[in-house]
Amino acid sequence: MSIKESFTNWIYDAQNRICTSLESIDGSAGFQEDLWKREGGGGGRSRIIEKGGVFEKGGVNASAVHGELPGLIRKRFEVDEGWFHACGLSLVLHPESPMIPTVHANFRYFELYNEEGGEAVDAWFGGGADLTPYYLFEKDVRHFHRTFKTVCDHHHPDLFPRFKKACDHYFYNVHRGETRGVGGIFFDYLRSKNEQNLSFWHELTTACGDAFLSAYLPIVEWREEEPWGDQERYFQELRRGRYVEFNLIHDRGTLFGLNTGGRVESILMSLPPRVRWDYNVQPDPGSREANLLEVLRKPEDWV
Amino acid sequence: MSIKESFTNWIYDAQNRICTSLESIDGSAGFQEDLWKREGGGGGRSRIIEKGGVFEKGGVNASAVHGELPGLIRKRFEVDEGWFHACGLSLVLHPESPMIPTVHANFRYFELYNEEGGEAVDAWFGGGADLTPYYLFEKDVRHFHRTFKTVCDHHHPDLFPRFKKACDHYFYNVHRGETRGVGGIFFDYLRSKNEQNLSFWHELTTACGDAFLSAYLPIVEWREEEPWGDQERYFQELRRGRYVEFNLIHDRGTLFGLNTGGRVESILMSLPPRVRWDYNVQPDPGSREANLLEVLRKPEDWV
Repeated sequence: MSIKESFTNWIYDAQNRICTSLESIDGSAGFQEDLWKREGGGGGRSRIIEKGGVFEKGGVNASAVHGELPGLIRKRFEVDEGWFHACGLSLVLHPESPMIPTVHANFRYFELYNEEGGEAVDAWFGGGADLTPYYLFEKDVRHFHRTFKTVCDHHHPDLFPRFKKACDHYFYNVHRGETRGVGGIFFDYLRSKNEQNLSFWHELTTACGDAFLSAYLPIVEWREEEPWGDQERYFQELRRGRYVEFNLIHDRGTLFGLNTGGRVESILMSLPPRVRWDYNVQPDPGSREANLLEVLRKPEDWV
Repeated sequence: MSIKESFTNWIYDAQNRICTSLESIDGSAGFQEDLWKREGGGGGRSRIIEKGGVFEKGGVNASAVHGELPGLIRKRFEVDEGWFHACGLSLVLHPESPMIPTVHANFRYFELYNEEGGEAVDAWFGGGADLTPYYLFEKDVRHFHRTFKTVCDHHHPDLFPRFKKACDHYFYNVHRGETRGVGGIFFDYLRSKNEQNLSFWHELTTACGDAFLSAYLPIVEWREEEPWGDQERYFQELRRGRYVEFNLIHDRGTLFGLNTGGRVESILMSLPPRVRWDYNVQPDPGSREANLLEVLRKPEDWV
């Protein structure tokens, strides 16, 4: 089986496993499925959960699309023509409780061809997983990072530090001088090179994807019973505003999708359900809210 | 007095007049003022209203900034070096009632210099005013357009049709295939050219600014007592999401400001206070909500 076929199978299988576990921990809502086709070739399976016991809104999307390279991608890759195959699993979960962090993860594979049906002339893996808490529990953040560190270290000890740094660098609201969340891992353009061939990155990417549930579910369990009220909810909704700012202003994936005719509702399922923007809100010095901002302005290693 | 001085005086005076009238129609909240300085030169006077009787959130910003051209502007204007002076009045009002439309207006003047303190080598006016209803009352939309048509026609009969078309074109969420609102007027790069010199555009711009209150306040008065409930509020919050999408993904002014080190809280005061994103919400065919969408997908002339 080709890497493309094998990874595509993994995507749909991982989507099933992840949705089943999330439904079980949510305890009340189920995922609704939308199958969609892309005009230029391929399609996807979007699964959305709303108004659950834990998850106010979330989506787990699987897609495998192919065809001629859209104009904007040709421009970016500096090629006059070309064909592509792109497949990936992408998820975002927005819990209702401000004590449970929002989480995002994405695992993807891309192949480029000079001619339709030809051999791939370039291919790479990308992905990552990152945590966006509203109230900081160090135990949670350490557990999340340690889980992915263990997976990465198993493949090569250099990977985790590199991916963690890339994560803090990528998920950065430059106009605010703040990271979106507390980090995790981020990688892109993992190609055959030197001692690491594509199979190596294939294994690493699926291993990270398979670790997602064990990285995140314990955090949900630890924080489910944590009390919160209007003040915490207010701060969560304000911070969700920063999440929107990142996704709409800076996120390459979102803008790429919107600019290349992706399915808008599947791309923007990443946006939080209820959000606020109030003018110039500054948390009290020494408060838990101020504590979070300090960490976002000066990313930590956590492991 | 130079055009620059005269227009700057107008900006601060218009801000005073507009804020006074808005406070009076709001009846409960007052504007809070923030004076700010820009590191590279100049500054502004931001005025914010929140949790009012009519206005849930709004801002009326005056600013006059100058200095060396920021890197991104140099790139855009294709010049290696240069100095600028930019001044403008910018306002956005988000009423609490879904029956009263959101309104935005902006009036600005820009001068470019080859050397610090030199003569202007280029200068232009820009601006506009546009309406974003959540529930469509044709009377309101016609009144808004007619008010600006009268002002524009007084200067030249060609202007209004051109500015209205530019407005529908500019405030367009291309990824949604919808305009942000129902239009109004939009103009940019109004320079000395042929029979129209800069004074002509100066007069037109201030005349449009001076017409803002008579274009918008009657609409507030007509709709203040219109009943609404949770369903209308829900739709308003969803549509406010589209407003955010436009401002953060497409609006040149917002991205320009954020990318050139503008004051973030003054730029993003344009974002609505409470917003929702639910997955793939489609209004019932024939409903008032569906009626609005139709108009946004196929802009009308209104006058």
